[in-house]
Amino acid sequence: MKVGVLGTGMVGTAIGTRLIELGHEVRMGSRQARSEKAEQWAESAGDRASSGDFADAAYFGEIAFNCTAGEGSVEAVSSAKVGLAGKLLIDVANVLDFSNGPPPMISATDQDSLAERIQRAVPEARVVKSLNTVNNDVMVDPARIPGDHVIFLSGDDQAAKRQAIEVLGEFGWPEERVIDLGDLTTARGPEMYVGLWLRLWGAIESSQFNIGLLRGQA
Amino acid sequence: MKVGVLGTGMVGTAIGTRLIELGHEVRMGSRQARSEKAEQWAESAGDRASSGDFADAAYFGEIAFNCTAGEGSVEAVSSAKVGLAGKLLIDVANVLDFSNGPPPMISATDQDSLAERIQRAVPEARVVKSLNTVNNDVMVDPARIPGDHVIFLSGDDQAAKRQAIEVLGEFGWPEERVIDLGDLTTARGPEMYVGLWLRLWGAIESSQFNIGLLRGQA
Repeated sequence: MKVGVLGTGMVGTAIGTRLIELGHEVRMGSRQARSEKAEQWAESAGDRASSGDFADAAYFGEIAFNCTAGEGSVEAVSSAKVGLAGKLLIDVANVLDFSNGPPPMISATDQDSLAERIQRAVPEARVVKSLNTVNNDVMVDPARIPGDHVIFLSGDDQAAKRQAIEVLGEFGWPEERVIDLGDLTTARGPEMYVGLWLRLWGAIESSQFNIGLLRGQA
Repeated sequence: MKVGVLGTGMVGTAIGTRLIELGHEVRMGSRQARSEKAEQWAESAGDRASSGDFADAAYFGEIAFNCTAGEGSVEAVSSAKVGLAGKLLIDVANVLDFSNGPPPMISATDQDSLAERIQRAVPEARVVKSLNTVNNDVMVDPARIPGDHVIFLSGDDQAAKRQAIEVLGEFGWPEERVIDLGDLTTARGPEMYVGLWLRLWGAIESSQFNIGLLRGQA
């Protein structure tokens, strides 16, 4: 499969590299037509890896990942609007505010979500929110955390969610640990959860954790 | 122990009844000096149960619980300010907005928390946030959910947190499943998490669940 990865940071690198390992072709996209980080990544990741700007990456992919920093995601996907039309766009980003220094604050609320803003910016893309609730290395290798921890899925397009579940499965997330929360507005839940994730990260001093869902009798 | 329970709804009733079962004396407080709900509860709960207004309940208790609806919590604790001075106040509330009908939206953000607003309103109380991340029946009987699910704790006063851990232990929360997130600002995390809790509740159509914390190698 050809995959466009928008974003050249740690998350884009983790997802791009994992997709290459899985045998896919990946084009990493950046704001500028040429990005040193994207070109270096493409060089190190081998023959199936390439780089370009956001629009190039989106055109290239049969599906795409939004791995840009949440603060710039709407602008990034807007610049790749035509290339994303009709395609699954897995949004893994969070909007983090470092203006008061680390640890960052998150701007998520129950009024809107980044995933919904992205969907409004690229209405012809089929946006699915997932993976934003774990560290980037856990996103692509959930076996780093033992036990039945879970990942969430939100989106308006059932076929797109089905396709996202398959990609998550390739990353190592068994379907029974993928929780479909519902339509894209439900992405507000996992986006707000990051406010707890940041405090857990502070309390246990490690990013190597995730949550499980334990259920009683209904 | 004498405990003041502020709030006469399902949460106040669950916590008050459980405290009575555990052998404590409980005064349930309401907005008005006399509340039919509080009086009925006190009558049904036996000799160690009584009722009054918020200030009465706060004066009565050696510790207190804020179980009022989050929208009215600051007003409620403010009216009980003198009685709460120096005491552990366990805030279990969430601010829910039903203005668009059910399911409610939550107003939590990473800028502030209800727990901090309560602490500012009653600076001499020793506020600890906990239990707001589970349904009321799970708060007081965590064994309803099998497995190692967890509960969070936030507060500025170490001795108050120590006392809260003991009360949680009486409810059935073993100390190793109580996660101390840090100071009271960390309450923003569990308060924001409720945005995810509401979507999980919608997706699995049950309130009988909680999250576990699974950890990998640091």
